[in-house]
Amino acid sequence: MKLIRWGNPGREKTGVIIDDIRYDTSAFGEEYNEQFFENDGLARLEDFLSANQGKLPQVADSERLGSPIARPSKILCIGLNYADHARETNATVPAEPVLFMKSTTALVGPNDDVIIPRDSVKTDWEVELAVVIGKKASYVEEADALNYVAGYVLHNDVSEREFQIERGGTWDKGKGCDTFAPMGPFVATPDELGDINNLRLWLKVNGKTMQDGNTSNFIFNVPFVIAYVSKFMTLLPGDIISTGTPAGVGLGFKPPFYLNPGDVMELGIDGLGESKQVVKAYAKN
Amino acid sequence: MKLIRWGNPGREKTGVIIDDIRYDTSAFGEEYNEQFFENDGLARLEDFLSANQGKLPQVADSERLGSPIARPSKILCIGLNYADHARETNATVPAEPVLFMKSTTALVGPNDDVIIPRDSVKTDWEVELAVVIGKKASYVEEADALNYVAGYVLHNDVSEREFQIERGGTWDKGKGCDTFAPMGPFVATPDELGDINNLRLWLKVNGKTMQDGNTSNFIFNVPFVIAYVSKFMTLLPGDIISTGTPAGVGLGFKPPFYLNPGDVMELGIDGLGESKQVVKAYAKN
Repeated sequence: MKLIRWGNPGREKTGVIIDDIRYDTSAFGEEYNEQFFENDGLARLEDFLSANQGKLPQVADSERLGSPIARPSKILCIGLNYADHARETNATVPAEPVLFMKSTTALVGPNDDVIIPRDSVKTDWEVELAVVIGKKASYVEEADALNYVAGYVLHNDVSEREFQIERGGTWDKGKGCDTFAPMGPFVATPDELGDINNLRLWLKVNGKTMQDGNTSNFIFNVPFVIAYVSKFMTLLPGDIISTGTPAGVGLGFKPPFYLNPGDVMELGIDGLGESKQVVKAYAKN
Repeated sequence: MKLIRWGNPGREKTGVIIDDIRYDTSAFGEEYNEQFFENDGLARLEDFLSANQGKLPQVADSERLGSPIARPSKILCIGLNYADHARETNATVPAEPVLFMKSTTALVGPNDDVIIPRDSVKTDWEVELAVVIGKKASYVEEADALNYVAGYVLHNDVSEREFQIERGGTWDKGKGCDTFAPMGPFVATPDELGDINNLRLWLKVNGKTMQDGNTSNFIFNVPFVIAYVSKFMTLLPGDIISTGTPAGVGLGFKPPFYLNPGDVMELGIDGLGESKQVVKAYAKN
């Protein structure tokens, strides 16, 4: 299945994509959130789809998409998980995964604007494969880890490099700004994808390819990452783990360069669709 | 007002403390969560209390207390915010606040057990004053910041120092372990407290005083911290900002020493009550 949420920000309805057509699943009566995944929502939704085949209203392609996951308890991210990206940022290849958190207030739809924060000079892009957790996970074994996955989703882990690196303390400061987590277009259940450790992912800025990598170059692959993170904190259904970005971020260029208002980011991952964000300057509402 | 949540874990009911007596406010019909604070819950609860004076059922002192805030969107923490603590951990006094995040799955009641994670050897204590945000805050001015506060609460920012410092990447790994955020006993609204930048706070391990500080020694005081954090991400009603710990943590001793199963932590802050946690070893359920 491919899950979407659509409609106006903060008032999204649920839906699915079947054969490239969007359908409204509001009648199912549940959000795609912690409770949904916790209570076997994917299986129940599948039953609902079978029972309502041919009866669900279509959703126009012109409708805005929101994040396909309603606000999770947390968004965790793995840093420096592709050797080429570690190299380009002059970081050593980590001996174990680098972990940081992204405020859930950063979540936006896949094609929403990305806002450069006030006083930001180094807003950067990062195409990433994100994992959606399907059930409560604590001290999970690597061999068992994929049983805890509800699905996968395309994520742009937008990052302010000055806030992240030059302002003291942890990376969290530069990762959780509003609009810094465009998520989607859809969550694909694992059966929709091939080998998740062999997916091409790419990102263009203003039509020029900046990142073109493959998850086969993960330093730490998805099962390892899930098992690893679950040693430090309990993962809840709906939680998101973003697995890191390949080479080609603005920080990695010599000299580095960053996003400006009017720039357009387009990104995609095999089997997880594409997203597109226009960069805007911050303006007080 | 002093807000409590009480009852079994995951099924807490709401209450208040008036003149040291606990009252059940379940009849008010709302959780103490984002929606409550967002929709002027404190004022409405005050009206409810006036209307029901003398009629609310009491809650026995033997009832367990939960975190007085239902799961917030995020728990943010300020690191190294007391000069004496920065010194003891051999850190330089930061030029601006150090910021990190704590998984909300770490939240427990004020007197619940603290579980030493599997493979942990450096679990440590940190008494802290935590701020509860009352309304959505983005790019708040320092002079206006206290208007965004719903209340204050006692927090033990339990920390695994090896996970935090020696395992690569950010501090988040050692801060968000399950049970690492004992919160409470109650949230006090600002009118219940004197000058929040002049409160004594202390922590004992097995009856011996380890920390005895005062928020007057903040490097960055509460209004500054709120304004600062709101530049990096939007704060939502119910969000928690923990403001850092004074000297006297296990990491600061020469040689350092850490918690063992059976140890008892007791802590308190002027006007915010006391909490007590027994340390237990991790045991697979």
